Amino acid sequence: MEYANLDMDRRERTGAPEIIYGAGKTPEQIIGIVKSMISNGEESVLVTRLDEDKYTEVLKGFTKNNISHKYYEEARALVTGDMKAPDGIGYVAVVTGGTSDIPVAEEACVTLEYLGNEVKRVYDVGVAGIHRLLKREKVLKGATVVIAIAGMEGALASVVGGLVKAPVIAVPTSVGYGANFGGMSALLSMLNSCASGVSVVNIDNGFGAGYQASMINHVTKL
Amino acid sequence: MEYANLDMDRRERTGAPEIIYGAGKTPEQIIGIVKSMISNGEESVLVTRLDEDKYTEVLKGFTKNNISHKYYEEARALVTGDMKAPDGIGYVAVVTGGTSDIPVAEEACVTLEYLGNEVKRVYDVGVAGIHRLLKREKVLKGATVVIAIAGMEGALASVVGGLVKAPVIAVPTSVGYGANFGGMSALLSMLNSCASGVSVVNIDNGFGAGYQASMINHVTKL
Amino acid sequence: MEYANLDMDRRERTGAPEIIYGAGKTPEQIIGIVKSMISNGEESVLVTRLDEDKYTEVLKGFTKNNISHKYYEEARALVTGDMKAPDGIGYVAVVTGGTSDIPVAEEACVTLEYLGNEVKRVYDVGVAGIHRLLKREKVLKGATVVIAIAGMEGALASVVGGLVKAPVIAVPTSVGYGANFGGMSALLSMLNSCASGVSVVNIDNGFGAGYQASMINHVTKL
Amino acid sequence: MEYANLDMDRRERTGAPEIIYGAGKTPEQIIGIVKSMISNGEESVLVTRLDEDKYTEVLKGFTKNNISHKYYEEARALVTGDMKAPDGIGYVAVVTGGTSDIPVAEEACVTLEYLGNEVKRVYDVGVAGIHRLLKREKVLKGATVVIAIAGMEGALASVVGGLVKAPVIAVPTSVGYGANFGGMSALLSMLNSCASGVSVVNIDNGFGAGYQASMINHVTKL
Amino acid sequence: MEYANLDMDRRERTGAPEIIYGAGKTPEQIIGIVKSMISNGEESVLVTRLDEDKYTEVLKGFTKNNISHKYYEEARALVTGDMKAPDGIGYVAVVTGGTSDIPVAEEACVTLEYLGNEVKRVYDVGVAGIHRLLKREKVLKGATVVIAIAGMEGALASVVGGLVKAPVIAVPTSVGYGANFGGMSALLSMLNSCASGVSVVNIDNGFGAGYQASMINHVTKL
Amino acid sequence: MEYANLDMDRRERTGAPEIIYGAGKTPEQIIGIVKSMISNGEESVLVTRLDEDKYTEVLKGFTKNNISHKYYEEARALVTGDMKAPDGIGYVAVVTGGTSDIPVAEEACVTLEYLGNEVKRVYDVGVAGIHRLLKREKVLKGATVVIAIAGMEGALASVVGGLVKAPVIAVPTSVGYGANFGGMSALLSMLNSCASGVSVVNIDNGFGAGYQASMINHVTKL
Amino acid sequence: MEYANLDMDRRERTGAPEIIYGAGKTPEQIIGIVKSMISNGEESVLVTRLDEDKYTEVLKGFTKNNISHKYYEEARALVTGDMKAPDGIGYVAVVTGGTSDIPVAEEACVTLEYLGNEVKRVYDVGVAGIHRLLKREKVLKGATVVIAIAGMEGALASVVGGLVKAPVIAVPTSVGYGANFGGMSALLSMLNSCASGVSVVNIDNGFGAGYQASMINHVTKL
Amino acid sequence: MEYANLDMDRRERTGAPEIIYGAGKTPEQIIGIVKSMISNGEESVLVTRLDEDKYTEVLKGFTKNNISHKYYEEARALVTGDMKAPDGIGYVAVVTGGTSDIPVAEEACVTLEYLGNEVKRVYDVGVAGIHRLLKREKVLKGATVVIAIAGMEGALASVVGGLVKAPVIAVPTSVGYGANFGGMSALLSMLNSCASGVSVVNIDNGFGAGYQASMINHVTKL
Repeated sequence: MEYANLDMDRRERTGAPEIIYGAGKTPEQIIGIVKSMISNGEESVLVTRLDEDKYTEVLKGFTKNNISHKYYEEARALVTGDMKAPDGIGYVAVVTGGTSDIPVAEEACVTLEYLGNEVKRVYDVGVAGIHRLLKREKVLKGATVVIAIAGMEGALASVVGGLVKAPVIAVPTSVGYGANFGGMSALLSMLNSCASGVSVVNIDNGFGAGYQASMINHVTKL
Repeated sequence: MEYANLDMDRRERTGAPEIIYGAGKTPEQIIGIVKSMISNGEESVLVTRLDEDKYTEVLKGFTKNNISHKYYEEARALVTGDMKAPDGIGYVAVVTGGTSDIPVAEEACVTLEYLGNEVKRVYDVGVAGIHRLLKREKVLKGATVVIAIAGMEGALASVVGGLVKAPVIAVPTSVGYGANFGGMSALLSMLNSCASGVSVVNIDNGFGAGYQASMINHVTKL
Repeated sequence: MEYANLDMDRRERTGAPEIIYGAGKTPEQIIGIVKSMISNGEESVLVTRLDEDKYTEVLKGFTKNNISHKYYEEARALVTGDMKAPDGIGYVAVVTGGTSDIPVAEEACVTLEYLGNEVKRVYDVGVAGIHRLLKREKVLKGATVVIAIAGMEGALASVVGGLVKAPVIAVPTSVGYGANFGGMSALLSMLNSCASGVSVVNIDNGFGAGYQASMINHVTKL
Repeated sequence: MEYANLDMDRRERTGAPEIIYGAGKTPEQIIGIVKSMISNGEESVLVTRLDEDKYTEVLKGFTKNNISHKYYEEARALVTGDMKAPDGIGYVAVVTGGTSDIPVAEEACVTLEYLGNEVKRVYDVGVAGIHRLLKREKVLKGATVVIAIAGMEGALASVVGGLVKAPVIAVPTSVGYGANFGGMSALLSMLNSCASGVSVVNIDNGFGAGYQASMINHVTKL
Repeated sequence: MEYANLDMDRRERTGAPEIIYGAGKTPEQIIGIVKSMISNGEESVLVTRLDEDKYTEVLKGFTKNNISHKYYEEARALVTGDMKAPDGIGYVAVVTGGTSDIPVAEEACVTLEYLGNEVKRVYDVGVAGIHRLLKREKVLKGATVVIAIAGMEGALASVVGGLVKAPVIAVPTSVGYGANFGGMSALLSMLNSCASGVSVVNIDNGFGAGYQASMINHVTKL
Repeated sequence: MEYANLDMDRRERTGAPEIIYGAGKTPEQIIGIVKSMISNGEESVLVTRLDEDKYTEVLKGFTKNNISHKYYEEARALVTGDMKAPDGIGYVAVVTGGTSDIPVAEEACVTLEYLGNEVKRVYDVGVAGIHRLLKREKVLKGATVVIAIAGMEGALASVVGGLVKAPVIAVPTSVGYGANFGGMSALLSMLNSCASGVSVVNIDNGFGAGYQASMINHVTKL
Repeated sequence: MEYANLDMDRRERTGAPEIIYGAGKTPEQIIGIVKSMISNGEESVLVTRLDEDKYTEVLKGFTKNNISHKYYEEARALVTGDMKAPDGIGYVAVVTGGTSDIPVAEEACVTLEYLGNEVKRVYDVGVAGIHRLLKREKVLKGATVVIAIAGMEGALASVVGGLVKAPVIAVPTSVGYGANFGGMSALLSMLNSCASGVSVVNIDNGFGAGYQASMINHVTKL
Repeated sequence: MEYANLDMDRRERTGAPEIIYGAGKTPEQIIGIVKSMISNGEESVLVTRLDEDKYTEVLKGFTKNNISHKYYEEARALVTGDMKAPDGIGYVAVVTGGTSDIPVAEEACVTLEYLGNEVKRVYDVGVAGIHRLLKREKVLKGATVVIAIAGMEGALASVVGGLVKAPVIAVPTSVGYGANFGGMSALLSMLNSCASGVSVVNIDNGFGAGYQASMINHVTKL
């Protein structure tokens, strides 16, 4: 129950809604935690890393307990209750290099929306087609925070970092093969970005990037 | 002239003062770039990664050219002209695990101050003496952004990340020996932080952490 | 039959009960070894790394041979005969960062109990919620030995090492993803602990930690 | 001042004498910390990782301040005041594979003696000459704790772990070349020891092994 | 058809019987190569890395074509025709640390026997029970070549290397878990052996060790 | 004399002028090889990896023997006799991310010019300032081959690879610090480039890139 | 849709036919992209990394839509419409060390043929049988570009690089086991080739090698 | 005194002359050990890894004590007394890829000659010039054992392994730069050799290869 307990602690401090890390928990555990949160008065709960098979099991428990929710297939995430209205400083731009990075991006997006942020998606604008990326320059420049998500050589973070004045949170993905060594190539690339203003989270950690981006977008309300 | 050119680009967008990455440049190159920036109307310039030997050479050129400046020995950084007054949302807390991490921390601090941020230093509060860290909980909780700097096992980032509601930028340092593999242990530790809201920059990259923290602290002015 | 033979050697020296490493042995081999040990007069035998599928097969052989035993599902371990009564100097505290670390922790606990130690479990007290850990400070401080088990960034070992005066045996786990590289992040973190008095065993090696902790708790009887 | 502060915290809990980690501190810092400790009533202080050049500088300050002490050249360590008389349960055996491992071993020995332990040195008994090691079997078997120190392939820990019933703390050293990768070969070897009852500290960390061995040897007094 | 072709080249030079590397070949390919070799007059053929499932398919083809052979289950190897009588200088001792290393050892043994060597098996004599190993000292000392096979910490090679005057070929195995990193721990350990006279082959490469040992045992006949 | 002999072999096939790899050769060896080549009728010789100190020694020998030559300081290379006139299909563009990459770039350029290629230098156009790179798009698009040289995150290769229709040879450099691990970050980044048409040479291998680029630029003359 | 979009960009510049990277795309996505390309007037499309199971699904959609095509089983690639006639400068030689490297080689060959190149296959000529390789020296020497493909120790690239005057593109494969670490051994080997004129692509990246080889073979037409 | 003691043990078994590993020993220690060996009746002693500076010091002690000896500069080795006459089965061929590998080769050669072997040197025959290597095929084929020494991509071992019927001992060297990672590239290459009959020793370990080759060359006398 890592996340759950942890965020109960955080919540006293932050008022943020509840988040459960679904990987490594059984459907029964997830159903139980959610039920107990709802009876504690939570209006909504986010469950991440919930693959479709496990969701099928969770769904049965939710149906039996009349728990209204929405499952986000690409993001492998589930939200009970209603999404919060956006109340951040501005919007967060979520950018990906390729289509294979989209599941990680959607995890970031659902997290952001759950935490009350407006999100603009800028997908499939990898640096090998730089003019496609530049066509989206305006939407990138208008963001309060940019999340740059890429596998393979992870060059997207540097190019985006050089274009915008907002902080960039880079998410390396495990997309690729061979000498990408499970995401290591993109990870090292992003850590060594020649652009200032870029920081990095764990490989495939869309949730972590979304969570921190929300903090930044709400920094005046902390 | 990596940084220099780059930031000239950035500057058009951001209005940020100029920054020169001193490592890998000769004293002559540094003197030349600074002179040319000043004649272009720059009120102040920050030079990072300028060790004492190189500074001694740079100093001669500055004296000859009447360039007023201040050298920050621990931070291995130099600022020409006057520091900007703090104008961010709040203050940035810079925390270190040990005394050996202080040079990296000071690089972050000088960068932050140069970019117009109030800084509070919380040094030598490594997690092996958790009660010493907790005595400083209040100053950590009041910050807009926290920079957590540690070598060895890098556990500081997780503990701090669990204490505050502000975003945490973690800086692994190369402090340690043996199985720290030049900072790899702290780097991996911070990337795998179990606390939400933590992102990471390159090993020993105090400048990068300071730069992004300033962006976050000025996020409403972007 | 690695463990088995080895511990027959050890046993002449130590009088400790028998232990069989179940991974890489067929159910038939396990049944055979246990039977032969019992006919050699062993009162009890511990089988570790015995997953549920293999246990199902072993169970059939035990039933046929009338071998009384108990299977510990979470620990993936089996003990024949009766557990020894605790006879160590004091108790051993077994601490985990998260719930996913519990299988490793239970392997340590069953090993400890099998070897005649009192165990106190302190689970799910990861450093991202430091105050939850501190609420358990007293039980940690009373222990003769502490086993600190954590995946991801493995920071628990350092924080616990700084709190107690007893030796700490750290067990990195493979819990996590991406840049945890199968437990490497927690392993390096624990080896580089800034707290004195911490030593480390192999990734996920709950048995090894329990075995050494028992040695320390019985050090006056060696 | 990492160690220093840290151990002041520890000391309130443990009554152990003071320890300063000398690497990364200037001679002036070391002199200052020792002076302040002595004026706080410390009867003795241990300074580790103090190479000969730095000691020469420290010596001047000590002479000027009339601080009586002894410098242990091989251990690169210094102790002020008098050594504590041994008061542990038994003695600690410190074993090395080769002569090049002796500096690490002596760091462990001085630490142990400083903390009140009787030490028996068993040097240069590497496993390639197994009969030489076996001639010392009796002294190994009589110890309360064994510290096994080896570089290269680090096999010593496993062989010793199989011989004794006491806990073994293994210290990999960086002795070797080529594919030893700075101590990685011995480190991995020791972590994967097929003998039960072995735990491991950082590469070349003689101090850490000595400190934990002392804890175990004093476990009844915690 | 790597091996096959290659060894046809070798064979012109060496007169050695034929060897086929079975991994990565379909049952059809294996049947085809064997048939063509037999019609070319080969008296016997060795097929390595042939797991049981694949053998079941190969068996059908052999039955249909009346190819007499023997399948060695533990070695995952197959030999057509008759084994050569031993004609080397002396015998080769094949030693393993644990029972899990036996499949690799048997691959070496079948290779050796196929190439006309007498083999003595010394299994399950890991260094954690050094006295068990020493009981077999005589058989080890009598060998022309020793093959030392071990996973985990791979210490066996060094101990055996120190005992005998014959060349030792060390085979690291992937046996173990966690920080064995797929055999890397034993590999590095063996490469850094402090005993003279030890060389190393690839992880799990029983065939390679057997092949070279046979060369050495027949060195006078080259 | 690696290169020297090797290229004598190559030369029979290619008619290319002679090349000597200077690293790891003494000044005396270099002088001797050059003298012998000249007396064998070579019109010109290229010596690479010749740092300034070694050149000072070589210069003495050359002066004594009346060997006319030119030393290229940034490239750390020396050419005797006259440069060949450009005779390739078109020109080769040599692009760098930063100024610190220039020594590697100049090694490529001198190699190219020595082998009869026209070169266009496009330096200091790192991807963090993408618009600066795009201003040079035309010169890049006109090249027969492009050599893309970058350290840190090495993203330049992907962006350039996406812009041009010519083959791109990527050279990772060791420029950077911390998690660049001596050039590994740029190397992995370039190997995983999402742009088609990019291949990679060893870290800092400007010579190798120049040599292959010349082959491609002369492909019709092979 | 990484490749697809990217190559649409490229195509405007290059006139090359379309290429789709099939891995990580669903059969439905592939069918959709191909259909849309055909309706945009594409005469042929190449789909790479399309394993047999996925092809079975794609086939249904193609049959329903009357899309004529050919599936290349070994290459795991599919081409719609007709292959272009060879129009390069000369032919490309594709060389492999063993038979297990052939799938990667065929991916290169189909890519080359699709892009209008004549291909000569030289398979199974690994360096352990050097005379077999030398028998093919003539066909290697006649090529405009050579693609050298090998797993295990990857030595083929160096030997071939020393034989020919054409540029060599080396493709490391993941063929092998144990210390090949998923292709790392061949990759490092090829990057460190002592032969001049060799560059390297990602592990198993037959497509990338074929694509760049085609660029070189068409370099006069760029 | 690692080697020294060790070989005293070995010597009782083998009658081999004495060997001292000079690295990590002071000149005084070396002089002392040699003197004591000579007074114990040793006719000759080999000291390895003795660089020139240290030799200069050792020389003074030898001169004072009238110890006749010869220093082998390239091999960094010293032999007291007279070399043994060759008495092995045949000769050992020592092959190198380049000239930079010669110091490692000479260490092997001096070791071999000291142990009574005839040696044939075949230097600078790297695989990039395969025809040069083939010109020496006859001398390679006549050897009882071949030692193949190479840095960079280490391909020499595979090519030689495919040419001869004798066992090949491969020595990877640290020669190279960048992605050779201190000899790792050659090491992995040699471990993954596609030729049968190749085994490997540590990076730069000329002594180890020579020692084992001598064992094989004397295998009938063991």
